[in-house]
Amino acid sequence: MVRVALFGCGRIGTVHAAAVAGHPRAELLYVCDPMETPAKELAVRHGATATGDIATVLGDPAVDAVVIASPTPTHVDLLTRAVHAGKAVLCEKPIDLDLARVDACWAGISRLTGADAPLVMLGFNRRFDPSFREIRDRVRAGEIGRLEQVVITSRDPAPPPAGYVGTSGGLFRDMTIHDFDMARFVLGTEVAEVQATGAVLIDPAIGEAGDIDSAVVVLRGTDETLVQITNSRRCAFGYDQRLEAFGSTGMLTAANQLPTSVRFAGAERAEATAPYLNFFLERYGPAYRAELDHFVECVETGAAPDPGFADGREALVLADAANESLRTGAVVRLR
Amino acid sequence: MVRVALFGCGRIGTVHAAAVAGHPRAELLYVCDPMETPAKELAVRHGATATGDIATVLGDPAVDAVVIASPTPTHVDLLTRAVHAGKAVLCEKPIDLDLARVDACWAGISRLTGADAPLVMLGFNRRFDPSFREIRDRVRAGEIGRLEQVVITSRDPAPPPAGYVGTSGGLFRDMTIHDFDMARFVLGTEVAEVQATGAVLIDPAIGEAGDIDSAVVVLRGTDETLVQITNSRRCAFGYDQRLEAFGSTGMLTAANQLPTSVRFAGAERAEATAPYLNFFLERYGPAYRAELDHFVECVETGAAPDPGFADGREALVLADAANESLRTGAVVRLR
Amino acid sequence: MVRVALFGCGRIGTVHAAAVAGHPRAELLYVCDPMETPAKELAVRHGATATGDIATVLGDPAVDAVVIASPTPTHVDLLTRAVHAGKAVLCEKPIDLDLARVDACWAGISRLTGADAPLVMLGFNRRFDPSFREIRDRVRAGEIGRLEQVVITSRDPAPPPAGYVGTSGGLFRDMTIHDFDMARFVLGTEVAEVQATGAVLIDPAIGEAGDIDSAVVVLRGTDETLVQITNSRRCAFGYDQRLEAFGSTGMLTAANQLPTSVRFAGAERAEATAPYLNFFLERYGPAYRAELDHFVECVETGAAPDPGFADGREALVLADAANESLRTGAVVRLR
Amino acid sequence: MVRVALFGCGRIGTVHAAAVAGHPRAELLYVCDPMETPAKELAVRHGATATGDIATVLGDPAVDAVVIASPTPTHVDLLTRAVHAGKAVLCEKPIDLDLARVDACWAGISRLTGADAPLVMLGFNRRFDPSFREIRDRVRAGEIGRLEQVVITSRDPAPPPAGYVGTSGGLFRDMTIHDFDMARFVLGTEVAEVQATGAVLIDPAIGEAGDIDSAVVVLRGTDETLVQITNSRRCAFGYDQRLEAFGSTGMLTAANQLPTSVRFAGAERAEATAPYLNFFLERYGPAYRAELDHFVECVETGAAPDPGFADGREALVLADAANESLRTGAVVRLR
Repeated sequence: MVRVALFGCGRIGTVHAAAVAGHPRAELLYVCDPMETPAKELAVRHGATATGDIATVLGDPAVDAVVIASPTPTHVDLLTRAVHAGKAVLCEKPIDLDLARVDACWAGISRLTGADAPLVMLGFNRRFDPSFREIRDRVRAGEIGRLEQVVITSRDPAPPPAGYVGTSGGLFRDMTIHDFDMARFVLGTEVAEVQATGAVLIDPAIGEAGDIDSAVVVLRGTDETLVQITNSRRCAFGYDQRLEAFGSTGMLTAANQLPTSVRFAGAERAEATAPYLNFFLERYGPAYRAELDHFVECVETGAAPDPGFADGREALVLADAANESLRTGAVVRLR
Repeated sequence: MVRVALFGCGRIGTVHAAAVAGHPRAELLYVCDPMETPAKELAVRHGATATGDIATVLGDPAVDAVVIASPTPTHVDLLTRAVHAGKAVLCEKPIDLDLARVDACWAGISRLTGADAPLVMLGFNRRFDPSFREIRDRVRAGEIGRLEQVVITSRDPAPPPAGYVGTSGGLFRDMTIHDFDMARFVLGTEVAEVQATGAVLIDPAIGEAGDIDSAVVVLRGTDETLVQITNSRRCAFGYDQRLEAFGSTGMLTAANQLPTSVRFAGAERAEATAPYLNFFLERYGPAYRAELDHFVECVETGAAPDPGFADGREALVLADAANESLRTGAVVRLR
Repeated sequence: MVRVALFGCGRIGTVHAAAVAGHPRAELLYVCDPMETPAKELAVRHGATATGDIATVLGDPAVDAVVIASPTPTHVDLLTRAVHAGKAVLCEKPIDLDLARVDACWAGISRLTGADAPLVMLGFNRRFDPSFREIRDRVRAGEIGRLEQVVITSRDPAPPPAGYVGTSGGLFRDMTIHDFDMARFVLGTEVAEVQATGAVLIDPAIGEAGDIDSAVVVLRGTDETLVQITNSRRCAFGYDQRLEAFGSTGMLTAANQLPTSVRFAGAERAEATAPYLNFFLERYGPAYRAELDHFVECVETGAAPDPGFADGREALVLADAANESLRTGAVVRLR
Repeated sequence: MVRVALFGCGRIGTVHAAAVAGHPRAELLYVCDPMETPAKELAVRHGATATGDIATVLGDPAVDAVVIASPTPTHVDLLTRAVHAGKAVLCEKPIDLDLARVDACWAGISRLTGADAPLVMLGFNRRFDPSFREIRDRVRAGEIGRLEQVVITSRDPAPPPAGYVGTSGGLFRDMTIHDFDMARFVLGTEVAEVQATGAVLIDPAIGEAGDIDSAVVVLRGTDETLVQITNSRRCAFGYDQRLEAFGSTGMLTAANQLPTSVRFAGAERAEATAPYLNFFLERYGPAYRAELDHFVECVETGAAPDPGFADGREALVLADAANESLRTGAVVRLR
């Protein structure tokens, strides 16, 4: 039984708490958050203890692993302390908005070796989506020959509040970072070039905060495979999450997903469905459970988690490159 | 060049006229109809001669073939005279509403042999629909193993005027007759049993005229294969024409067809299309052209047309059996 | 917290055990089955007690409710005893294969009133399938106008072992019974007429056991709505579970379901998916959980479960009528 | 009756000849090509006269209009002479590979005014595809609110022979030019910025000839709308032609197209179709007919054709900008 402590009881923390509580070989011991009331509510719901004290959690030898779902600025500190306390870590993306801090974090923890070696997994939940993973696996198995083009569509149902934008690190580090990871997941090679275009089409307040709300990013793998990412902060018909892998002998696509298989035909239209699943809780529910299952298995066996710390770092490198390309209008060459 | 005369310039005659005029190896010589004005209009549009005189048409040695698209009660007479005049015949379904007259007709023309042997093709246009024909061919090629079940969905967009119902011969002989032929087309064996259920759900006037507007017919082939036919005289979303062939190793289906491949997603619904193609002119346009092409080829080569006179007769036998089953509530065994 | 005892630890019992264990407001107390080893295994997995003794279970005042998933011949006895012991009951279909026994059972328990009144729910899990339920709800809400035709497709992936067929009560009482209930669920009226056709197309041993493996059943509602049911004991491409509701102003359909949204296009074919979900555990997993949730809620609130005992009886009436129609070749009129 | 002469009897000329011959108000008078045999064959098939002499054709006052489907280097000369001879012109894309020649051509013919004013239509056939046009019309009608992103997928079934690549002007001027026009067609505004990425993934010989075979182009409209174009010279599953228009209140997509509506389900896969339509003759057959119909109508009424000469020029401007961006790795700003 893997005993888990959770940091952060917001929207994403709630998802992780349910996944831990529902896992046959995991148990939720602590919900740790400075916000006392919601922490308590979440803890009670899953038979855990609520606390605001990080040291208590990390000092408890009963805790095998921690899930870090607190605000981004706290990630590096919590991750570092947890690793030094000998806990396995599942950390939400991004590790940090500042690559220098990420590298310093790694420099600090990667010196630990042997039994103390860090077990750090990054929360790129979409790698565990059954459809995306199936495409990755079939691409690797050679089913479409040589991979030539990858098309990632990723649109959120509604823009975040203007206040959030300022602290988010910008679209590329906050939202596209998932797609950068998906690109690397499907590619199987590193990215050599980044080219980014963006616009403010949805909310002028986002532009005033110095960010964009619509973007197209083009990546080139070291093997020349081309990747396109389409982002939007708003999508009238729900969450838009699609993937296309095009190769020399075929194509694999994952369509956007619907709540049921019901279709309607009438005098005005045919084959109409309900809108697509609204957001990540609905679409990626099974992915969060599979992600936690992988983490539990790694904790049990000591296997290296995939995605790991380095994957979190590389996604941030791509986000920074996209920001530079957006600023200069030129391709950024990484390798 | 096959020179063709057309009898009947109504809705279906107009379709045949265009198909003849557009065929590279056919030419429309006459449009023959007692209604002078529309006959003239149609003839002018395609460079043909309009006439109300059947003898003129059948007596013209330049005419190789005739297309009979006049009202049902005229079919047997025109077909008989045309065959005796040495013309090839493409006759719209049904041959007649009275099986005795159909048999008498055949008795009369089937005595002709050698160069005088009748070349008669029945206008079961759906056999030439590319999707339905593909299914038939793939079933025959063994792609789904042993055929076990056939499901035919056939719904018209709107009921005919009440006045038409009285002269139509009833739903089974007027509408389902196409589906009876489709069943035989896909089955590849004859039908051994017929079981029919019907209801008046759409228009009470149809019921008062002694007919039904909704029906389910179940057939059993001589090889035990089961067939279901669903009919409705009204369909809010257009013309509903589908086919499912289920076998021991797989299933082939032909979906209903749309005008374009455009889909819409919005806040209320996703994947919505325009309504399905509205009626047989839209849906079966290519089928009418392929049907005429087969007829022209038979006239050129002397090959026996498929479907032929016997197919027209057999569909009528099934329609009569369905009427009997509807009346008695019992299975009608034919073989 | 609703405390539950489970009778029967076979395939379907295992599903119910997991549903109970995973429900936030339910607890699995007993797994009761004469087969000691599998009962123990299942009990251990969910922290329950295994026993072979029915009296122990029904005599334990801690038990609020029982789930009956044992072989059909035991249902009536267990159901009766459980009701008399004051337990709420969720009973798998069919109640029994013999309508007289079903009626006797009801005569016995329906005399109980007040606090002793029986709370009996029938395990027609498909009523809880999100797609089918959505169709039912939208039909009731009038979205397709007057309901005219219902088409139910229901095919199992593979035939049961020949030995099972003999004790199953035959296709209509074993398999179609789910579809009879679905017909009533969507219709919203009772069935007035039954017409059935069947064949042995898959396994001659099934025929030798006096049963059929392929069937078409046509029902007519008391409001004249027509229903078609297509059954097959074998389906090469997985479990085939579809529903079509056709009305005066539109149509609602529920397509068969796929494991992921991945599609493949290559030189030989396009839009290909994995085969459909293989069987009821995969397809109806969410339905079993929703079914249990409804049962738990009824136990908590004392509300009458839907579907109840009468629904289980009515489905059996339809199955018997289908058998009679199959035998006589005639429509069976019920109302 | 619009009397037409055709220049060029290659693949695309053959398509135009059939469209002219099949048009109810057009007539094919000449097929003009230096290749005597194929010109004669094509002329005979449609009852026209074959000739190798341009002056004969342009000097014949019976000729109202010409279709230029000869090799690209001949376009400007033929177009200029035809306009000066008072003929209406439908010219295949591109007008020329050299923007300076295009501008000189326009300078020469645009001085003609009044009855001599040039009537020049560009052969951007995809504007007449029913699905793409429906999307454009519905976007204009405001159905998806403010247009934010356009995604164009355009892949050819197989790369052209290496020899062709050298004279094609490169991928952007030869193939993407259709997509540049489609972008402008849907956008409804001009393009302000072009960013292009390309790779040689399919045929090294294409790379040796100085060209690319795979590309992604990102455009920004003057209203900030973002456009993505995905190109590939090879597509294992046929011709890949899709369009997505994403707006503030919804999305319209046009899926790739299939030869029939037949789907197959078996033990290995479900919902499989035949490969997509193979190439432009199959996919854009109706579009070529609609294109010619628009041209005939313009000739009859004197209306300005859409797309016109300026549209041909603008697409070339975008292709040149894409080449520059590909070379420099930087955004090219046009406006």
